[in-house]
Amino acid sequence: MTDFQTFIDSTRTQVAVEPIVLDQPVRLEDLPTPALIIDLDAMERNLDKMQQHLASAGMVLRAHTKMHKSPIIARMQIERGAVGVCAAKVSEAEVMMRGGVSNILITSPIVTDDKISRLMKLASHSEEISIVVDHIAAADRLNQAASEAGINLKVFIDLDPGLGRTGIETGEPALQLGKHIVSHCQSLQFGGLQMYIGNCMHIKGYEARRDKYRSLIEAGIETRRMFEEAGIPVPVFTGGGTGTFDIEPDIGALTELQAGSYAFMDVEYRDVGGQRGEVFDDFETSLYVLVTAISQPQSRMITMDGGFKSFASDSVQPEIRDVEGVVYYFGGDEHGMVRLNNPSRVIQIGDKLQVITPHCDPTVNLHDYYYPHRNGLVSEIWPVSARGKSQ
Amino acid sequence: MTDFQTFIDSTRTQVAVEPIVLDQPVRLEDLPTPALIIDLDAMERNLDKMQQHLASAGMVLRAHTKMHKSPIIARMQIERGAVGVCAAKVSEAEVMMRGGVSNILITSPIVTDDKISRLMKLASHSEEISIVVDHIAAADRLNQAASEAGINLKVFIDLDPGLGRTGIETGEPALQLGKHIVSHCQSLQFGGLQMYIGNCMHIKGYEARRDKYRSLIEAGIETRRMFEEAGIPVPVFTGGGTGTFDIEPDIGALTELQAGSYAFMDVEYRDVGGQRGEVFDDFETSLYVLVTAISQPQSRMITMDGGFKSFASDSVQPEIRDVEGVVYYFGGDEHGMVRLNNPSRVIQIGDKLQVITPHCDPTVNLHDYYYPHRNGLVSEIWPVSARGKSQ
Repeated sequence: MTDFQTFIDSTRTQVAVEPIVLDQPVRLEDLPTPALIIDLDAMERNLDKMQQHLASAGMVLRAHTKMHKSPIIARMQIERGAVGVCAAKVSEAEVMMRGGVSNILITSPIVTDDKISRLMKLASHSEEISIVVDHIAAADRLNQAASEAGINLKVFIDLDPGLGRTGIETGEPALQLGKHIVSHCQSLQFGGLQMYIGNCMHIKGYEARRDKYRSLIEAGIETRRMFEEAGIPVPVFTGGGTGTFDIEPDIGALTELQAGSYAFMDVEYRDVGGQRGEVFDDFETSLYVLVTAISQPQSRMITMDGGFKSFASDSVQPEIRDVEGVVYYFGGDEHGMVRLNNPSRVIQIGDKLQVITPHCDPTVNLHDYYYPHRNGLVSEIWPVSARGKSQ
Repeated sequence: MTDFQTFIDSTRTQVAVEPIVLDQPVRLEDLPTPALIIDLDAMERNLDKMQQHLASAGMVLRAHTKMHKSPIIARMQIERGAVGVCAAKVSEAEVMMRGGVSNILITSPIVTDDKISRLMKLASHSEEISIVVDHIAAADRLNQAASEAGINLKVFIDLDPGLGRTGIETGEPALQLGKHIVSHCQSLQFGGLQMYIGNCMHIKGYEARRDKYRSLIEAGIETRRMFEEAGIPVPVFTGGGTGTFDIEPDIGALTELQAGSYAFMDVEYRDVGGQRGEVFDDFETSLYVLVTAISQPQSRMITMDGGFKSFASDSVQPEIRDVEGVVYYFGGDEHGMVRLNNPSRVIQIGDKLQVITPHCDPTVNLHDYYYPHRNGLVSEIWPVSARGKSQ
C-alpha cells in the first residue's frame, strides 16, 4: 500500500544518475543490441566547439537536456562553461537536479496544481530554477504558489514566434504580461524573454534558414525594445538551437543559446546543410544505435534487430554508418530492413552495424542506457536518467 | 565498479513487475500528464471476448507481450485461458519470466552468443521456453548451446510470408530445415511452424484483408502438408494477430493466434474496418494517453503536453476521445496541437483530455507506468515492466 505522493516522489528518487563503472572495459561488439552508443571523443569535440564558438560570440550556452536526458552530459556541458540547462518538463528538471544540476530553465508552460507544486519544491532547493510563462492567469497562479511557498521565482516570458504552439503574442500582449509580472506579482522575478523558433531549425540550406530566422526574430527584438522603453530591463533573451548556432551571433538578438542536438547530431540535422555546403558538418555525429543482422530471407535484403522501438520514426530514415550502397528502412516495431543495392562491404548475419539516428531527441528517449566508448571500448554505462520524463 | 554481466543481470532483476497498490484511489484528473491510462472494464471485456472467440473456434491464444510489455496483463490473459505468451526479444522474455510467466515463445531469431546464452538461462528455468529459427546455421548454434547447457530446447521454424523480414522460404527450404532439426539437432525439439503475415494485419476492409491473407497463408498450409508427408508432425502452427482474429478460424490453418493489440486497440486498427463495416469495433479502445491543455497562443488552436515522446509517430495521428470537430497533430517532441475546427465542446487551458493512441505497441513503449482505472478511479499503478526491452 503506497500513498500516491510517495509514488510520485519515487519516480524522481529511484532514477539512477551516476555512471555505472565497469571493472573491465567491454568491446562494442559484445554489447547486447540494439544499444545506444556514444563516440565520446566526437561528443567532447562537439561540446568544446560549441562552447568556444559561443564564448567568442559573447553568448552563453543553456544546453537543452530534453535531447540527452542525462545529468552526466549536462554536467560535462556546465564544466565547459554552460550557464545552466533547459528542461522541457518539470519531471525532467527533477532528474537534472537530482543529478547535481541546479541552474534549470523549464521551457514549456505548466498550468496544473500538481506541476506547480512540484516546481515549488524544486525552486525551494535552488534559486536558479526558472520557468516560462505565457499568459496572465498562469503568472498569477505561479505568483500565488511562490508566495505561499515563500519563494522568489524567476520567470521568462515565452514569445510565440508565430508557430502557435506555446508563447504569448510578441509586442503589446507580451509587454502587458511583462508589466503585470513586474507590478502585480511580488513573488515572481522577471528573468527575461524566451523565443524558440522551432520551425526554423530544420530549414534546408544555410541562407534560407538564416533569412527566415532573421525575419521571425525581428518581432522578438522589437518586443525587447518595447520592454526596455517601458523601463523593464531584459537581462536575458534565450532561445535558438543547433540549427541557428552560427546565425545568432550575426543577428545579436539572443544572449543565451538553447542548443541540444549539437552534442550528438542526427540524419535530420546533418541534411539541413551548413555554411560550408549541403552537409551540416560543423558538429560530428557522435550518437549511433548498434544493431545486429539477424536474418536474411532474401539475398538483396538483410534484417536488423532495431525498428520503431529503437529509432524515432517522426522524421527521416535511419542510416548505416560507413557502408555505401545500402538503404535502411523500418521493418516494424522490432526490425530494420537493409536493402543491399550495391553495398560497399559485405554484410552478413551476426554482423553488428552502427546506425545514425534519424532524430536524436526521441531516439534517445527510447533507450535505458548509453554505452559511451573510446576507440570501441566501453568503460562506463550511463543511464538515460530522464528517459520517459515527459510529465 | 561493476562486472558487465552483473550489469546485464541487473537490467532484468531491477525491473518492477508487480502492481503498486495505492492506499487511496486517485482520480484520473489528478494524474501527472502525459499519463498512459487503461479503461480496465473495457480491457477485460476485450480479453474475455478474444478468449471466448478462440475457444469456440478451436484455437488457442498465445498473447503477444511486445504490445503491452506487462507481466500483469500477461497473467490476466493466461488466467483466462491463453496457452502462454510471445515475446519479441530475449530481454522481453526475461521480464515476463520474472513476472511469473513461464510459457514464452520468442518470435524473432537470435544469432549472437550473448543472446543465446541468455536464452539458455531462461530455458534452464522453464521447459516452456521456445524460440523461432530460420536457417540451418542458427539451428546448429542453438543445438550446440542447448547441448552444452543440458537442455532440450523447443524451436519453431519461422516461415517468411514473402515479406522478406524474417523466416525461411516456405516449401522445400523450410522442409530441409525441419529435417535437419529432427535428424541432426539432438538437443532441439521441433515444436511446429510460425508464419506471421505482418503485412496483412492493417489492410483496409475485411474482405480485402481476408482474401490477401488467405492467398498468403496457402504456402504455409502447403509447407505443413509437406512436413507431415515427410513424417514430421506439426503439433502447433502459430501466427496471426488482431487483424486476422476472425479470418483464421474459417481458414483453419493456424492452431495458435499471436494477438496483442486487441487488448487495447488504437486508431490504426480501428480504421482497418471489420466484418461489420468500416470501423473495426469487435474490440473496444481501452488505452488512452491523458494530456493537459497548457497553452493557447491562437484562438483556433490549443496546445497539449504530449508529442513524439508520448505517442508513437510511425503511422497515423492521435485522436481525441469524445470530442468532435477537432484534429490533434504533433507539435514536436513535447507537444500536441489541437486545431479547433468546430469543437463539440469547449476545450480550455488546464483541461485534461483522453487521446486514442495512433499505434498502441510503440506508444506503450514510451511510458514507464500504466494508470488502470474503473470509472475514473485509479487504485493501482502498473509498471510497463518490459519497456525498452528490445534486446
